[in-house]
Amino acid sequence: MTKHNAVYAQSGGVTAVINASAYGCITAALKSGFIGQIFAGKDGMNGVLEERLIDLGAESKEALEALRHTPSGAFGSCRLKLKDMEKDFARFERILKVCEAHQIRYFFYDGGNDSMDTVAKLAEFAQKAGSPLQVIGIPKTIDNDLPITDNSLGFGSAAKYNAVSMMEGSLDVASMYHDSTKVFVMETMGRHAGWLAAATGLGSRMEAEGPHVILLPEVPLDRHAFLARVESMIAKHGHCAITVSEGAVDKEGYFLADSGLKDAFGHEQLGGAGHVVQEIIKHELKFKVHGALLDYCQRSGRHVASKTDVLQAVACGAKAVELAAQGLNGVMVTIVRENAAPYQWSLGHTEAANIANKEKKLPREFISEDGFHITQGFRDYCSPLIQGEDYPPYQAGLPAYQRLKKVLRPIRLPEFKNGN
Amino acid sequence: MTKHNAVYAQSGGVTAVINASAYGCITAALKSGFIGQIFAGKDGMNGVLEERLIDLGAESKEALEALRHTPSGAFGSCRLKLKDMEKDFARFERILKVCEAHQIRYFFYDGGNDSMDTVAKLAEFAQKAGSPLQVIGIPKTIDNDLPITDNSLGFGSAAKYNAVSMMEGSLDVASMYHDSTKVFVMETMGRHAGWLAAATGLGSRMEAEGPHVILLPEVPLDRHAFLARVESMIAKHGHCAITVSEGAVDKEGYFLADSGLKDAFGHEQLGGAGHVVQEIIKHELKFKVHGALLDYCQRSGRHVASKTDVLQAVACGAKAVELAAQGLNGVMVTIVRENAAPYQWSLGHTEAANIANKEKKLPREFISEDGFHITQGFRDYCSPLIQGEDYPPYQAGLPAYQRLKKVLRPIRLPEFKNGN
Repeated sequence: MTKHNAVYAQSGGVTAVINASAYGCITAALKSGFIGQIFAGKDGMNGVLEERLIDLGAESKEALEALRHTPSGAFGSCRLKLKDMEKDFARFERILKVCEAHQIRYFFYDGGNDSMDTVAKLAEFAQKAGSPLQVIGIPKTIDNDLPITDNSLGFGSAAKYNAVSMMEGSLDVASMYHDSTKVFVMETMGRHAGWLAAATGLGSRMEAEGPHVILLPEVPLDRHAFLARVESMIAKHGHCAITVSEGAVDKEGYFLADSGLKDAFGHEQLGGAGHVVQEIIKHELKFKVHGALLDYCQRSGRHVASKTDVLQAVACGAKAVELAAQGLNGVMVTIVRENAAPYQWSLGHTEAANIANKEKKLPREFISEDGFHITQGFRDYCSPLIQGEDYPPYQAGLPAYQRLKKVLRPIRLPEFKNGN
Repeated sequence: MTKHNAVYAQSGGVTAVINASAYGCITAALKSGFIGQIFAGKDGMNGVLEERLIDLGAESKEALEALRHTPSGAFGSCRLKLKDMEKDFARFERILKVCEAHQIRYFFYDGGNDSMDTVAKLAEFAQKAGSPLQVIGIPKTIDNDLPITDNSLGFGSAAKYNAVSMMEGSLDVASMYHDSTKVFVMETMGRHAGWLAAATGLGSRMEAEGPHVILLPEVPLDRHAFLARVESMIAKHGHCAITVSEGAVDKEGYFLADSGLKDAFGHEQLGGAGHVVQEIIKHELKFKVHGALLDYCQRSGRHVASKTDVLQAVACGAKAVELAAQGLNGVMVTIVRENAAPYQWSLGHTEAANIANKEKKLPREFISEDGFHITQGFRDYCSPLIQGEDYPPYQAGLPAYQRLKKVLRPIRLPEFKNGN
């Protein structure tokens, strides 16, 4: 059997386990028998376009294995989204040329909604051009907003990180409220879907435990009802812990984050939804408030990753290679929930076009009737995804995260103006 | 030997290990032979003043043992600071009355600079009043700004949390910079001393690894030099990760946090030093910036606690009981560095008055010459304090943190107007 090469590339916001998928994919490729060498695109699709391909053969076995426990995109990620084939013809053509020049027949693209759009388009372009290139997607996004797949890789770990952070922040304000801070506000990621904010609700096993309120993008903020709930929680429990999704919106559908802070220069300020909620509470209720904004830490928080997420990430990476062996093109690996309790899962696949540019929002049945918390249905869905701990090794008190050498393959083509 | 009772109370901002000290103190007290019962002040000193004493006998053995791995103040903390004896005479007198009413002869106060002021004053007041009360302090503060003691309890864990968070955030921006975010800013606590911000520097083992810049309260911000450094790091490494202490100050000595954001209502906004630094970079250098504000999460982040810190916290709690047995009064337990490498420590004590209201700032030799990073001297000092992992047990994917019943002892005295 003639062997052909493969390329693996990362796309979009990174996660605690995207490198675990890389590890799964690379390991499976090297064992596959039909893949010769596997390269990685430096800075995602940019590296493919600009012929900056990382030679994984130059990395030690130990370094590649350490990818399993190293967060963020070890090869660099990208925000580049390919446009329609006509508009981005030069780029599509270039990708085929680079792949041809390096005997690449398998393209593994690890990303979210936008990336699956690229997978679908590139697969179609290759087919029309008579290229043998096969493009396979791996379902990555902490936002968990990909349809069809049970969940997306990185979500379980970010959900666990956020739930643990809210438990800890909530215990903190619970010990301070008597003569000091009464409200703790924590902002989570999730611009269009409330999965990551909702996940913090898992730590609240009784009403007294925070978060006492969750503000989701799916539920436009009723300011009066919100303030009434905060006041009632403080009256009952002495304190109130609040999770705010960065995508929380007001009644007119505008992002809270856009609602009007100005900086010293008079410029509009995107202070963040959590910040705006803090201000509302300070001005309307006059309580002392503390606020946390976890930002990147929540999506790269590998030190408290979900073991389920890590195992699924490795398995999905390997599954992509299996789909390539089956001759598939333009598809994405999916996670299938075989059984709810005990949680059992398997892997499948779907057309990448079914995923592209779609956003799976939190369904109504996962949101409590008053809109401020989660339901048992959400707990049943989300809890299995944060199960198990998978600690990285530590050296001198800190996680032994891996830095790769990232030696680039020799250039074989003329330069391409990628325009980034 | 006649047994007398004891009270333990928590004060000031809580930590990941303050309950581990409580565990050490309570366990040692129950084993001591000279202490009958030990109670806990609900909401710190407020509970003593208001005769809200938690009956620890009502808690199960398992619950008390779980304090060792439960963050924040399990009994509630306080911000109350006693004034001079003349001004706060009624409060001092009330404390003695409550202690007398409950046969309390030993008062263990777990707190920082302000709390040691209370320890010193209360001890003196009791002595002058002819009361047999002995007051012993336990050195708690994530700020690590207590003099004399090698370090303070809670610092090691918060330092580890911050260093891990910066490593992870830094790896994140390192994977995004090619066509997106180039700067990551993380704000740490530490209003007057830079220990917590400096600790993030431990994750940077070579120049390429973030944090690339640390803004400390001890070094007034030279805006020009700072922006030049950010630009140079981006030129060399493509990205720049920055730690900002909440106490960072400008050249005139004003907090950056106070430098002029206004909200939609036109009110002054304390946006936080990190936020201000983000704005400076956006306006002056036009780079895309992400920012994290860890807030309470850093001081209650028990899930990634330092084992050294946990062991010291338990030991200091027990040591307080030993000092009580020796008949000491108005003293604080200290940690003594017996050997630098390998790190060896023992416990001692000092007069609480030596600690009261003093702030140990980061010494100049711990700060790099240009003021933007740490030295090997700081690494040698700080690294041992974050060594070792001490994971809490997990249930259903989340830490099994303990909630106590907090049953209060029967009231024996008339009500006291504490004024909180």
